[in-house]
Amino acid sequence: MNIAVAQSGGPTCAINASLVGVFSEALKIAEIDAIFGSINGIEGIINDNLINLKTMIRTNEDIELLKQTPSTVLGSCRYKLPKPDEAGEVYEKIMACFRKHDIKAFFYIGGNDSMDTVDKLSQYAEKNGCDVKIIGIPKTIDNDLCITDHTPGFGSAAKYVATTVQEIIRDSSVYSIESVTIIEIMGRHAGWLTASTCVLRANGEVAPHLIYLPESDFNAEKFLADVKREQAKHKAVIIAVSEGMELGDDEFRSGATDNFGHKYLSGVGKRLENLVRDKIGCKARSIELNVMQRCSSHISSKTDIDESVSIGAAGVRAALRGESGKMMYFRRISDTPYVVEIDAVPASEVANKEKMFPKEWITPDGCDVTDSALKYFLPLIQGEMVLEKKNGLPVHFKIREEILRG
Amino acid sequence: MNIAVAQSGGPTCAINASLVGVFSEALKIAEIDAIFGSINGIEGIINDNLINLKTMIRTNEDIELLKQTPSTVLGSCRYKLPKPDEAGEVYEKIMACFRKHDIKAFFYIGGNDSMDTVDKLSQYAEKNGCDVKIIGIPKTIDNDLCITDHTPGFGSAAKYVATTVQEIIRDSSVYSIESVTIIEIMGRHAGWLTASTCVLRANGEVAPHLIYLPESDFNAEKFLADVKREQAKHKAVIIAVSEGMELGDDEFRSGATDNFGHKYLSGVGKRLENLVRDKIGCKARSIELNVMQRCSSHISSKTDIDESVSIGAAGVRAALRGESGKMMYFRRISDTPYVVEIDAVPASEVANKEKMFPKEWITPDGCDVTDSALKYFLPLIQGEMVLEKKNGLPVHFKIREEILRG
Repeated sequence: MNIAVAQSGGPTCAINASLVGVFSEALKIAEIDAIFGSINGIEGIINDNLINLKTMIRTNEDIELLKQTPSTVLGSCRYKLPKPDEAGEVYEKIMACFRKHDIKAFFYIGGNDSMDTVDKLSQYAEKNGCDVKIIGIPKTIDNDLCITDHTPGFGSAAKYVATTVQEIIRDSSVYSIESVTIIEIMGRHAGWLTASTCVLRANGEVAPHLIYLPESDFNAEKFLADVKREQAKHKAVIIAVSEGMELGDDEFRSGATDNFGHKYLSGVGKRLENLVRDKIGCKARSIELNVMQRCSSHISSKTDIDESVSIGAAGVRAALRGESGKMMYFRRISDTPYVVEIDAVPASEVANKEKMFPKEWITPDGCDVTDSALKYFLPLIQGEMVLEKKNGLPVHFKIREEILRG
Repeated sequence: MNIAVAQSGGPTCAINASLVGVFSEALKIAEIDAIFGSINGIEGIINDNLINLKTMIRTNEDIELLKQTPSTVLGSCRYKLPKPDEAGEVYEKIMACFRKHDIKAFFYIGGNDSMDTVDKLSQYAEKNGCDVKIIGIPKTIDNDLCITDHTPGFGSAAKYVATTVQEIIRDSSVYSIESVTIIEIMGRHAGWLTASTCVLRANGEVAPHLIYLPESDFNAEKFLADVKREQAKHKAVIIAVSEGMELGDDEFRSGATDNFGHKYLSGVGKRLENLVRDKIGCKARSIELNVMQRCSSHISSKTDIDESVSIGAAGVRAALRGESGKMMYFRRISDTPYVVEIDAVPASEVANKEKMFPKEWITPDGCDVTDSALKYFLPLIQGEMVLEKKNGLPVHFKIREEILRG
C-alpha cells in the first residue's frame, strides 16, 4: 500500500515539520511502500501531480533542513472542495488518483477549510467503496481551531512576535519625547497571537501596556482614555492590536483613493495611529509584523516544531489503526510540567469553525489579558532549534528541479 | 580623570556593544576613574544628566546582556549642535559639564550628524582651553558613513534582512499562481542595506530577482519590462527596493487624504505594488521590514557585535594617546580571510556626508548588483551570538529605575 500527504492554507514555520512527521513514521512501517507528496494541496491529487517523497527526502540532513524551512515545501492551495452532489466529478478525480496509485491513506495538513475537505472526502470514500483513510493534521498560526489545545505553527509565530515586540519596545524607548507605538498582529477573527504578547510579562516587561483583541468591544473614546492613562505612567506607550479588530466606527475608514482609483485600505494599526496623532497629538507610529509572523523559522519554537513532527506521526498511526475523517489534536494534561497528549476527533467538529480567545481571559477593562492566558501561552514558545547555517544564513530545504519536473 | 560616553541617532543592534567597548577598555586603564553615561545623547551633557556606568554595569553578565540588547540603553537624541558663534551658551554648558565632572574624554557613538558634533566640540574645546578629547564611534544601519569600510550596526541589519528575505521567498512561493512580492528596505539615500540582500546568492538563492537602489535611475516602463522578463522565468518574482528610491514620477504619489485630512504617504513598496497590479494585473503585495531591520538583536551578526565592541575600545585608546576630533573607522585589509584594522580619521571628513553604494557595483541593467558587492557584504553577516534566554525569550539589559533617578 501507498500513502499521500499534502499541505494547504497559509504558510507557517511548522507545516514542513508535520510533513517530516508523516514521512518519518511511514518509513518505519513495513507495509507502506511509496510515500507521495501532492503538489499544491488537494489540487495535486485532483490533477494527479504527485512526487515520490523518498526521492525528495533522502538523508537525515534533508529531514533536519525541512524542519527549519518555513512555508510549504509541496506548495499550497486555497481550494475549497464543493459538495459531492454539486461536483461529483472532482471527487471522482480524487478517488481515481487514490486508486491509480494504490493510496490507502491521505494526510492533509491544514486549517479549518482543510478539515472540511477531510470530512467530505472521508464520507465520500466510505459511501463509494474507496478504501482510503483520510486524516487531518492541524496547522495555523491563528490558533483558532476547535477541540485542540493549540495548533502547530502557533507557538513559533508567538515566539517570533514576542521576541520582536520586545525589540520594538527597546526601539521605542530611546527618545525623551512622549510616543505611542501600535503593533498590528495577525488574526482576522481570533486574537490569540496578539494576546500571546503577554508572555513578555514573564520576563518582567510591563509592555505591551495595552492589548486589544477582536473578542473585546472597541470604543474610540475608551481607547483614547486608555492611552492617556498609560501615558501618565510610561513615556513610550506600546499597544498590541489584532488586525481583525473592528473599530466599530466608519469615521476611521478612509474613502480616499489614489490616482489609480485604488481605495486605501488602511489597516487597524494605521487608523489607530492617526487617531492618536489627531486626538492626543503626540508622536505616533504603527508597525505591521506582516508575513514575517508566519515564516520566521530562524526563531521558531522547538516545542512547536517537535510537536508538529509528533502530530504528523500520530496521524499515520491513526490511519493504520483504521481511523478516517479525523483530525489529530493536542490535549493539554498540565501546564507545569507542560504535558500534552495527541488524540483524534471527527474533522466535522473542527471544519469551518473558529475558536475564539476566551472572554474570561480578557481583563474586565477590555485592554489586557489575564495570568491564565500567560500560563497557557508560555509553554508553547519554549526552546530553540539548532539551525544548520551556511554563510551566516539558515539553510532552507529546496526540492530539486528534476524532481518537480517528475 | 573621568570620561563620558553618549549614544545618538537611530537605534541599531550594535550601539550598546560599542558602549561596552568604551566601558570595558576604560575599566582596564588605571588613570580613568569615573565612567559617566550621558542620558539622551549630547542632551545629557548639556543638561548635566549623567549616570555612573560602574553602578549600572556591574557584572560580566551585565556586559553580555548589553551586547545582546538592541537600541540605546542610555537613550538617544536627534540634537544637531548649532554653530559656536550662533549658540555659544550651549557650548559653554557642555564645557561646564566636562569641567564640573573632570571629564577628560568624551565618546560619541553616532552617525554623520554626531560626527559633526564631535568635530565642532573638539574645535571649540581646543580654542577655549578646555582639556577634553572628543572621539566619535560610528554606528548606523545605513552603512553610509564616509572613510570607514562599513559601519557598526550594518552587519546585524544586513543579517536580519537577508534571513527574513529568504523566509519571505519561501512564503511567496507556495501558491500555483503568478505573484510579485516587493520588499521595502531601509535606506533613505543610500542603498547599502537593500543591496546586501544579494548575500542570499552565496547559498544558491536566485531571488531577489530584482534589486533597485536610490543610486540607480528608476523608470516605470523599464521596471515593468524587468518584472515581465523575470515572470517568464519565475512564478513568484521577488523584488528588493530601497525606501529612498525616487520613482521620478508624481503620478505614483497620491494626493489623497483620509477623513482627518492626513495626506497618504504611501511608501515606495506600496506604490510599486499598485503599479504592478494595474499594469501587469497579477497578484502583488509589498512588505515593509520597518524598525525590525534596526533592532532585531535576536539575529545579530557576531562579527558586527564583536567589531562594535572593538571600535569602542579603540576609541578609548585613541583619546588616551591624545587624539581628538576624530572618528574611529574600519579599514578592510582583505575579504578572504576577512581582516580589518581600526584607525582614526578627522571627524570633519565624515560629518554631514553620505557614502553612496558604488555605481560600479550596480549591474549595467540597473536592477541588480555585482559579485564584488557580494564579496564585500558576506563577511559582515558572519557568526551568531549565543544569547542569554529566559522563558524562551532573549533577555534584555535594563537600567534599574533607581539609577535613572540618580
